[in-house]
Amino acid sequence: MAAGEADFAGTHLLIDCWQASRLDDIAHIEATLREAVAVSGATLLHIHLHHFTPNGGVSGVAVLAESHISIHTWPERDYAALDVFMCGETHPHETVPVFARAFCTDTIQLSTHQRGAAANPASDSSTGNQRTAS
Amino acid sequence: MAAGEADFAGTHLLIDCWQASRLDDIAHIEATLREAVAVSGATLLHIHLHHFTPNGGVSGVAVLAESHISIHTWPERDYAALDVFMCGETHPHETVPVFARAFCTDTIQLSTHQRGAAANPASDSSTGNQRTAS
Repeated sequence: MAAGEADFAGTHLLIDCWQASRLDDIAHIEATLREAVAVSGATLLHIHLHHFTPNGGVSGVAVLAESHISIHTWPERDYAALDVFMCGETHPHETVPVFARAFCTDTIQLSTHQRGAAANPASDSSTGNQRTAS
Repeated sequence: MAAGEADFAGTHLLIDCWQASRLDDIAHIEATLREAVAVSGATLLHIHLHHFTPNGGVSGVAVLAESHISIHTWPERDYAALDVFMCGETHPHETVPVFARAFCTDTIQLSTHQRGAAANPASDSSTGNQRTAS
């Protein structure tokens, strides 16, 4: 691990979007996830979305070389719950403006969690925090 | 929404497993995710796992009718980061002993987040919190 590099596995953002729009548009949501992956500098490995009935909600996950992004929408509440978990040389906070613009809202609650912080006595601080995609 | 039912979209658990084993065994991890879905009473819609090289880490996501479960493992740290997000009539906390047993550890950090809590002035408390899978 390089000097000054934080000793944790990754940054996990929980993002709640309120007063949001286009939450039943699965094509728009897929394009938004792909844009979020791109702006954060992550590498997309797999993407899957599911459209629910009868409320039109969408669930989607993007599996990344650097962990994942998920979204679950409740159009009837104008609400979407997202999480962005990224390790390595990525910029997860860059995704938040993408979601704000895509879902036409500035009513967003964000919490940031450092996963795998070195609270574990068995942790090996000499180990790097980036995985390599096969 | 029924009287007494909490007004939030779902329960989101962040689960950190330390001093854990079998974190490079993709078949075991997939079986563990499937068991976690079963014990929580959720409905599996889609599952995808990816095996990284050279460290043997695994990323996996299970998309549910009630949201998702994800796992990312760092075998070289004996560490796994999971999240379990479930809405509806499910029991997300029941998954924690499944992970403890599967990964042979009792060193687990758990944090619980209520997503979509009624902090939003635009929220409609008459709307149910369970979606129906198509």
